[in-house]
Amino acid sequence: MALIVQKFGGTSVGTTDRIKNVARRVAEYRARGDRLVVVVSAMSGVTDGLIKLAKDITPLPSEREMDMLLATGEQQTIALAAIALHSMKIPAVSLTGAQAGIVTDGVHTKAKIKNITPRQVHGLLNEGNVVIVAGFQGRTDEGEITTLGRGGSDLTAIALAAALNADLCQIYTDVDGVYTADPRIVTSARKLDEIAYDEMLELAGAGAKVMQLRSVEFAKKFGVTFEVRSSLNDNPGTLVKEETRSMEDVVIRGVSLDKNQAKLTIVGIPDQPGRAARIFRALGDAAINVDMIVQSASHGGGSPATDISFTVDKPDLLKARTVLESTHQEIGHREVLADEGIGKVSIVGVGMRSHTGVAGKMFEVLAFEGINIDMISTSEIKISVVVKLAQGEQAVRALHKAFIG
Amino acid sequence: MALIVQKFGGTSVGTTDRIKNVARRVAEYRARGDRLVVVVSAMSGVTDGLIKLAKDITPLPSEREMDMLLATGEQQTIALAAIALHSMKIPAVSLTGAQAGIVTDGVHTKAKIKNITPRQVHGLLNEGNVVIVAGFQGRTDEGEITTLGRGGSDLTAIALAAALNADLCQIYTDVDGVYTADPRIVTSARKLDEIAYDEMLELAGAGAKVMQLRSVEFAKKFGVTFEVRSSLNDNPGTLVKEETRSMEDVVIRGVSLDKNQAKLTIVGIPDQPGRAARIFRALGDAAINVDMIVQSASHGGGSPATDISFTVDKPDLLKARTVLESTHQEIGHREVLADEGIGKVSIVGVGMRSHTGVAGKMFEVLAFEGINIDMISTSEIKISVVVKLAQGEQAVRALHKAFIG
Repeated sequence: MALIVQKFGGTSVGTTDRIKNVARRVAEYRARGDRLVVVVSAMSGVTDGLIKLAKDITPLPSEREMDMLLATGEQQTIALAAIALHSMKIPAVSLTGAQAGIVTDGVHTKAKIKNITPRQVHGLLNEGNVVIVAGFQGRTDEGEITTLGRGGSDLTAIALAAALNADLCQIYTDVDGVYTADPRIVTSARKLDEIAYDEMLELAGAGAKVMQLRSVEFAKKFGVTFEVRSSLNDNPGTLVKEETRSMEDVVIRGVSLDKNQAKLTIVGIPDQPGRAARIFRALGDAAINVDMIVQSASHGGGSPATDISFTVDKPDLLKARTVLESTHQEIGHREVLADEGIGKVSIVGVGMRSHTGVAGKMFEVLAFEGINIDMISTSEIKISVVVKLAQGEQAVRALHKAFIG
Repeated sequence: MALIVQKFGGTSVGTTDRIKNVARRVAEYRARGDRLVVVVSAMSGVTDGLIKLAKDITPLPSEREMDMLLATGEQQTIALAAIALHSMKIPAVSLTGAQAGIVTDGVHTKAKIKNITPRQVHGLLNEGNVVIVAGFQGRTDEGEITTLGRGGSDLTAIALAAALNADLCQIYTDVDGVYTADPRIVTSARKLDEIAYDEMLELAGAGAKVMQLRSVEFAKKFGVTFEVRSSLNDNPGTLVKEETRSMEDVVIRGVSLDKNQAKLTIVGIPDQPGRAARIFRALGDAAINVDMIVQSASHGGGSPATDISFTVDKPDLLKARTVLESTHQEIGHREVLADEGIGKVSIVGVGMRSHTGVAGKMFEVLAFEGINIDMISTSEIKISVVVKLAQGEQAVRALHKAFIG
């Protein structure tokens, strides 16, 4: 008799029929004797509709009131899910994040979970209920309603699994699991049976958008093994877990392509200490996430100077240019070039640690394909390169074939 | 600097534009220096939409989960109302019923308010905020979310006004106040400046559907003076308040017509003690509200027998007939007749107590109009008669002319 936390996202509960499907799946597990905590998101479209109402009133609504508003989305789904289970004669009780004992800090719209006191969840489970918890939300010590930001429902599920010491946490989504590459790009891509937290983190950070980084980080921190699987079929998914020794036998777990980056090059920065720090502090203050950074000697111009290239998320490109303009006088660079036509291709695997020559093989494969490498960055278990956007998919296919098959 | 509780119903907050209108009105009062607590309902249509979702899943959803579901409607409005006030630079904070300290019993979908601990409301008012409270909802001592049933938002406003010892409670609606009669029937009907709780109760009970009885009863019990007024204009409304001596100068405060009643006649009940009690206990057990009752000797048949006529709400007619059929063997009556073509016409006024001959004058007026009286019932401050539905409006016009002008 296992204790399982299951999480269903907005698409999986997008209509009353889909909520009934979720209830049927929960019922199957229950029939096996499992005890179940079910975390649900708002029905797809509901959150966007509520945001639209608020923006109809004012472009910048207060974050505290947005939390009050948006928390209703999940509250509706938990009630409907409980009603669906009742209609199948299964005892079920819904709980808001606050009722489930999820206590957060007071940073509205992106609160962090401080602790979980699942007394009520335990009590209801012991009485034989399926407990349905609103994802994405919690409350502060003072009783204020908060939301956890993007990927918040995954986080609720993983945090609850940790607090309840659950046997398993299942994240149901609209894909079958984590793949060696995007199957739309690589037809021979296959679903992974398992993946280490760090690999999942690097893949997520490299553009494979199965889950938000913070949920995986939380799972890693608290050692919560979770399964990413589809709510549309009964196929087993991918287990995301602690790294094991046998995982190192696989050199490369996956290949990813991030088309969502843009490159900025600051040309002709006078060669004096502190200039680079000043630039990246200004970008950080503006909450712009900088990914890859490459510095090189500047060509042209008189006095010694440096060029710095870096990548940012495409939506932040305009903001980044504005920041660079505002620091122009202070930095004294010659010009700023922007390039949106890039793709970041990454290979990820914990096996990289114990296998040598991986980078060399990667560069050879790309050279053989005639793909020029613009920037390179490496971590212990990831190598990323920036290439022309138009060659991104070709690069992924070639690397997948070379490393995975 | 008065403390005012204002309540806005679903139509008044039915769109974001209307919510902005509500915010403008609140802003006007605030500009005068008043401190404001604003109670809002769900946006019109939202509650019905949520009920439909639940009924899509199962015809009889659990009441506990319906409360969880429906409470989100008001929670959305409070957030949007706060956002609208912020956009006018007015500090405002929304509170759910639970956060506002509204504690109820555990009878889901029709909970009763047990007590209100408005500590947080006081605190937020003292900090200079407009406090926006979700109507219609509360929580139990155990933290379960409850709703108060029909007219619940009015009740929230009046109960908060009592708990806060507010100077005034304003119930904003889509009519200008309480009228001497329905202006659609009597063109000379006029808005009342004031009305006693008991008159309001009798009028509401007699079909004048401005407010639910329970809110008026609550206001009477706790001595909360409230004003019924329109959210569409700035006209003063009707003050509902303790009876004063001067109110007795007005014999008849209003005339009402209730078209929503049906008459049942149980013919030929054997003349033995306890039969009537048995009938009405059975109806009461089935939660059927019986209004007027008339007993008379039965005509026809052999042994001594009685006829009993009574009125019920039209929607309960079928259920009432079913109950009477189930008691047929026990009661031994001859037959049951039903008549849906009736109207109940009432005149109401505390002045009736000190003025004689009111009933006689009422019957004379109706006789002069050729209107036959089918049933009569009286209270200390009300006389109701049942007439043919087709003559109901004619009766109201004649009585209004004779008593009010």
